[in-house]
Amino acid sequence: MQFMSDNAAPVHPRVWDAMRAADSADTPYDTDALSRELDARFSALFGRECAALWVATGTAANCLALSTMVEPHGGVICHEEAHIEMDECGAPGFYLHGAKLLLAGGVGAKLAPEAIAEVLAGITRGVHQVPAQAISITQASEYGLVYSHGELDAVAALAREHGLGLHMDGARFANAAAHLACSPAEAAGAVDALSFGFVKNGGMGAEAIVFFDPEKAATIHFRRKRAGHLQSKGRFLAAQILAMLDDDLWLANARAANDAAQIVAKAAGERLVHPAQVNELFVRMNAVERAALRTQGFAFYDWDDSSIRLVTSWATDPGHAQALGKAIAAL
Amino acid sequence: MQFMSDNAAPVHPRVWDAMRAADSADTPYDTDALSRELDARFSALFGRECAALWVATGTAANCLALSTMVEPHGGVICHEEAHIEMDECGAPGFYLHGAKLLLAGGVGAKLAPEAIAEVLAGITRGVHQVPAQAISITQASEYGLVYSHGELDAVAALAREHGLGLHMDGARFANAAAHLACSPAEAAGAVDALSFGFVKNGGMGAEAIVFFDPEKAATIHFRRKRAGHLQSKGRFLAAQILAMLDDDLWLANARAANDAAQIVAKAAGERLVHPAQVNELFVRMNAVERAALRTQGFAFYDWDDSSIRLVTSWATDPGHAQALGKAIAAL
Amino acid sequence: MQFMSDNAAPVHPRVWDAMRAADSADTPYDTDALSRELDARFSALFGRECAALWVATGTAANCLALSTMVEPHGGVICHEEAHIEMDECGAPGFYLHGAKLLLAGGVGAKLAPEAIAEVLAGITRGVHQVPAQAISITQASEYGLVYSHGELDAVAALAREHGLGLHMDGARFANAAAHLACSPAEAAGAVDALSFGFVKNGGMGAEAIVFFDPEKAATIHFRRKRAGHLQSKGRFLAAQILAMLDDDLWLANARAANDAAQIVAKAAGERLVHPAQVNELFVRMNAVERAALRTQGFAFYDWDDSSIRLVTSWATDPGHAQALGKAIAAL
Amino acid sequence: MQFMSDNAAPVHPRVWDAMRAADSADTPYDTDALSRELDARFSALFGRECAALWVATGTAANCLALSTMVEPHGGVICHEEAHIEMDECGAPGFYLHGAKLLLAGGVGAKLAPEAIAEVLAGITRGVHQVPAQAISITQASEYGLVYSHGELDAVAALAREHGLGLHMDGARFANAAAHLACSPAEAAGAVDALSFGFVKNGGMGAEAIVFFDPEKAATIHFRRKRAGHLQSKGRFLAAQILAMLDDDLWLANARAANDAAQIVAKAAGERLVHPAQVNELFVRMNAVERAALRTQGFAFYDWDDSSIRLVTSWATDPGHAQALGKAIAAL
Repeated sequence: MQFMSDNAAPVHPRVWDAMRAADSADTPYDTDALSRELDARFSALFGRECAALWVATGTAANCLALSTMVEPHGGVICHEEAHIEMDECGAPGFYLHGAKLLLAGGVGAKLAPEAIAEVLAGITRGVHQVPAQAISITQASEYGLVYSHGELDAVAALAREHGLGLHMDGARFANAAAHLACSPAEAAGAVDALSFGFVKNGGMGAEAIVFFDPEKAATIHFRRKRAGHLQSKGRFLAAQILAMLDDDLWLANARAANDAAQIVAKAAGERLVHPAQVNELFVRMNAVERAALRTQGFAFYDWDDSSIRLVTSWATDPGHAQALGKAIAAL
Repeated sequence: MQFMSDNAAPVHPRVWDAMRAADSADTPYDTDALSRELDARFSALFGRECAALWVATGTAANCLALSTMVEPHGGVICHEEAHIEMDECGAPGFYLHGAKLLLAGGVGAKLAPEAIAEVLAGITRGVHQVPAQAISITQASEYGLVYSHGELDAVAALAREHGLGLHMDGARFANAAAHLACSPAEAAGAVDALSFGFVKNGGMGAEAIVFFDPEKAATIHFRRKRAGHLQSKGRFLAAQILAMLDDDLWLANARAANDAAQIVAKAAGERLVHPAQVNELFVRMNAVERAALRTQGFAFYDWDDSSIRLVTSWATDPGHAQALGKAIAAL
Repeated sequence: MQFMSDNAAPVHPRVWDAMRAADSADTPYDTDALSRELDARFSALFGRECAALWVATGTAANCLALSTMVEPHGGVICHEEAHIEMDECGAPGFYLHGAKLLLAGGVGAKLAPEAIAEVLAGITRGVHQVPAQAISITQASEYGLVYSHGELDAVAALAREHGLGLHMDGARFANAAAHLACSPAEAAGAVDALSFGFVKNGGMGAEAIVFFDPEKAATIHFRRKRAGHLQSKGRFLAAQILAMLDDDLWLANARAANDAAQIVAKAAGERLVHPAQVNELFVRMNAVERAALRTQGFAFYDWDDSSIRLVTSWATDPGHAQALGKAIAAL
Repeated sequence: MQFMSDNAAPVHPRVWDAMRAADSADTPYDTDALSRELDARFSALFGRECAALWVATGTAANCLALSTMVEPHGGVICHEEAHIEMDECGAPGFYLHGAKLLLAGGVGAKLAPEAIAEVLAGITRGVHQVPAQAISITQASEYGLVYSHGELDAVAALAREHGLGLHMDGARFANAAAHLACSPAEAAGAVDALSFGFVKNGGMGAEAIVFFDPEKAATIHFRRKRAGHLQSKGRFLAAQILAMLDDDLWLANARAANDAAQIVAKAAGERLVHPAQVNELFVRMNAVERAALRTQGFAFYDWDDSSIRLVTSWATDPGHAQALGKAIAAL
C-alpha cells in the first residue's frame, strides 16, 4: 500500500483518453488546436485574461516562470525549505543564470510577510548584494500547509510595495484549492505566475505555467525552447491539461487525495507534526513503529529521525487509507 | 496529404501499448524497472557497454550530451547549418553556459574532416580564442545525407587526434541506419555520445542519450535534473524507447519512412537538390508548381526560393507518396 | 622599433600624475570624488546627459554594456570579424549568459545597414531562433576604418526601427574621432552605449562605459560588481580617465598616433589593404620583405599570408615612423 | 582618523616605484617579464611549485579560483557569512554558472570540520541536490579570526576524504600569516588554490591567484580572459605583486596593520566581540558612544546594533590608533 509520494501515481483514465484522441492531430510544437486552447481555458478558470503554456515538469515550470521576473544579478525570496531551494539540484541557478535564492524561515515552510520583510530589510549594501526581484511561495507548502486568502493578500501587498514579481509553485495547487473550497482565483491570490501542477494529480507529464498578466509571458516561449522543453508533439501535453480541466477533474482528483489523507489524519491525531490540510501528512513515529507499519505492507518516506511523511493521491484506495489509519491507531 | 515534417507524426500503436502497460508501476523519476533497463538494452543493441537515459526532446538530448564534453569556456565544432546552430534558439549557449559553436561548412550539412581541420587550424591565439573541446555531427544530416563508415572513421580519428569529444545528433539516426543497412554500431561509428531520436519515428516524447563510455555519463544525471528534464513519471518515457527497440521497431519504422521517400524521389529525379538517402527530400520547384501541388492537397515546407522540403514518416501512406510522385512528375 | 600594437604602450605622464594625486583619497569602490565626477565630465564632452563608469578592460566594457541590452535568449548583430566575436574568448557568451552573436559580413569589418538587414530578414522562425536585441559596431573597425556620420545614422535608424539596442566598441574611438575631426557626439552617433577606450591611448587600465540614456545604466553597477570588476581603489581608474579628458589629452594622443600612421601609410601606398584612417595599417608584404624589415629592427604582427599589421600609438616616435616608411619604400 | 576599512588605503611607495619602473616594458597581457616571474616567486615563497596569476580584485580571484574546482551543477561549502556569500553580489553564481553555495555556520565566520561534515551529511538525495565539489575558507575570517595549523589540517583532511577542492580566500592572508608568525606555507595549509590579497595591504589593484598544483591552473587563463580580466598592460599588476613580495613587504605591512589594531584592542578589552588577531576589531558600542567617537574625528563602520567594526591598515598612523584606544577607554 503506497503512501510514498503522489509523484508516480497512475495516469487518470480520462487523461489517457484525451491523449489518444490527440494522436490524429499533426501540427508540431504548440501550434496544434489543443495547445492553442490553453489561454482561453485558463482565462475562463481564473476569470481573467491569462496566458498559459505547457511544460513537462514542475522544476521547469517554476524556473521558467521565475526567469521572466528575475535578472541574472537579482534574487528570489523563498522559504529555506522550498522545493526550488531543496530539491531541484540548483535548477534556479541554471535557469536564472546564477541569480540567488534569498532564504527566509517560517513555520510549515510557509513564508510569512515578516520573514520576507526581514530579508528585504537586510539588503542595504547597494551593489554588494543582489537585489530582490521576486518572491516565490508554494501553495500548498512543502509541509502540506495552505495559504489563506488573507495570507496571500499580505504577501502580494509586500510584493507590490517593493516592485517584486510574485510566483506560486503550485505543484499541489489543486489540493490547496480543494482544501480552501474557494475559487481557483482566490486560491492563487494576486500572483503574477503560477506553476499549476497536474502530474501529481492524474496527469502524465504536463504542468501549466499560467501568467495572469499575459504581457509578462512574452519571452517565456523563447526560454522554453532554449531549455529543450518545447516538445514537438506538444499536443499530448495540452491534451492532458485540458482533460484535467474538463468538468473540474483536477478538483475532483485533489479532493479524493485530500479525503484519503483525512482518513489517516484522524487516526494519527496527536502524532501530526503539522495540521492535515491537503494530501501530505508528517507523522511522528519511532523506528519500531515504522518497522511495524512496513511489515503490514505500508510504503512511506522517512522524513527525519522523528517523523515519517505519508502522501495520498487521486488514486489512493480509501480502503488502504483506512487500513493505514487503523494500523497507526493500533501502534 | 502531409509531407511537412516527421516531427508531429502519430505515435505508433506499440508505443501506446507499452505506455499503457507502464501505468501500473509506481516508482518515480528513473528508479522504475523500465528506466533501469535502458543501459542493458542499448548495450545489447550496440554490442558494447553503454549508459543510456531518456529525455523529452532532441534539443535537450543534444545539449545535455555536449555538456559532458565541453566547459563553459570551450567550443563545439559543428556545421553551420546544424540543428544546434540553426534551430534550437541558442540552447547550446544555455546548456553549455556560453560555450561557442565553431562553425564549419560542408556540402549537404555534412562536416568533412578538412572543414573541421580548418577550424582547428584557425585556433592559434591562445586565451583570446575558445579552445575546441568537441565535434558534433548529425546522422542523417539536416539535408538528409548519411555519413558512411569511412566518413565517420575520419571524423572520429580527427577527434581523437585533438582530444575532442565526439557527439552525434541522431534525430534521424534510425533513418540513417536503415539507409546504411549496417549494424547500429557501424551507423554510430566511434562517437562518445549519441542523441538517439525516437520522437520523429513513432515515439511521443522520449529520446535517448547513449554514452559509449559509461563513465562519461557520470554527471549528466545531475544536469538533466537541473534542467527540469527528470520527469517524475519517467517510466512512460522509458516505455516508449523500449517499445521502439523491441523487435527493431525503430528500424522498421525508419525503413517505411525511407521507402515512402524513395517513391517520391524517383518521380522528382533531376529536381532533387541532394541525393535521396533517408526521409527528407529537397526538391527544386517554382512558385507556380508549389501552388499546383498545394491545390492537390499536398502540405510541405517552403525551404527557400528555389526548393521545397518533403518529409515522410513511419506513418506516411504509400498511396500518398505515390500520389505526390505522380503530381510532381506531371508538373 | 615597436609597431606591434598600441595595447601595451606606455602610460602618459599626465595619467601618472593624476594617479599619484588620487592616492590620498580614501573612499572605496566608486564612492570617491573622482569616480563621481565621471557622469558630469562625459555629459559635458558629449553635450547631453550621460551616465559613465570605469572598468579595467575593453572586453569587460563591451560585454557589460551589452548585458544591459540583451537577454540570455537574445542575440547581438555584429561583424564576423568584430573583437567580441574573434578575440574575447567567448566573453559575450559568459556575460550575456549564452546569448548569440549573429554575424554579418562587410568590407573592412564595418557593418553596412544591408548586412544588418539581411541578418534580421533571416529571423523568421519564431522561437526556434534567437531574436536580435542589439547591434554592436566598432569605431574605428578592426581594420582601422571609421564610420562616417551618415553611416552611423543609417545603422542607428535600423536599430530604432527594429527596437534594437546599439552599442559601440570604441577601443579606438579616440582615433576615429581624431580622423573625423568632428565632435565626440558626432563620432559616436546615436548609440545607446559606448565602450570608450583609454588604455590603448595613454591610460593604464581604465576604460569608460558611457550610457547616453542614463536610465539604461541602472543595472550595470550590479553587473560590474558581480563580474569582479568593481575595484576597491576605483579612484585610480577614475583618475586615469579624467586625466585623459583634461584638455582633450585623449584627442591629442589619438592625433599623434594617427599622424605617425600617416607617415608610414604614405610610404606604403599601393601596398595598403585598407585606406589609412586611424593608427592601424594593413600592408601587403611577402615573407622576404617581412624578414628584411625585422632585420632593421621593426616589430610588427603577421596578419595573414599576404599582409602585416602595423600599429602606432600616442607614444610612437615620429622618427621611427619615418624610418619604417623609408624601409618599406625601399623594399 | 580612518578606521573604516583597509580597502581604500593608500598605495605603498615601493609599489608606486615598481609600477613606474614597469612602464618601459611593452609586451601585452601577461607576456611581459614581470608577469612571467610570478610562478617562480610564489614557488619560492611557498617552498613548492606553484602557478600564479594576477587579477584586479578579490572577487574575481575567489570566483576564478573556484571555477577550476566546481562544475555548474556542483556546490561550494562555505561559511554563511563568507564574503563570497555576503558581499559579492552573486559573483559565484555568475562565475560558476549557477553552482550553489552550501552554507555552514561556525563561530567567528570560521568553518569547523563538524559544520562541513554536517553539510555533507545532508547531501543524501542523489540528483535532487547539488553535489559538493569544493570548500572555501577565509584566512583570516570575516571577523578577523585566523585558522591555526591544526584547524587547516582538519579542513584539508575532510576535503581530501570527500574528494573536494579546497580554496582559501586570502584577502587578508598577509595579516593571518603575520599573526601566526609561521611560514606562508603553514598559513595556507593544504589548500589547492589561494586568493592572495595585496590590495588591502599596500597594492593598488592586483591580487594573486596561487595554485599549489600547477596543473589545476590549466583552464583559468581562458576563464580570466573570458571574464574581461586579462588586462593588456598586465605588467603593472605583476609589478605591484612583485614589489609586495620583495623583502617581504607584504608581511611588514600586515604586521604594521595588526600592531595598530593591537593598540586599539588593548583599550577595547572586554568590549571585543572576537579575539583581536589581525587588523579587524569588532567592538561592542552603543549609539551614544559611537557618536562620541565620531565627534572626536574617528570614522568607522556600524556593524550591527550592538557593535562597530574598526579596521587598521599598513598605513594607519600608530598615533591615531593610540588616540582611538584612549577615546574608547574613556567612554
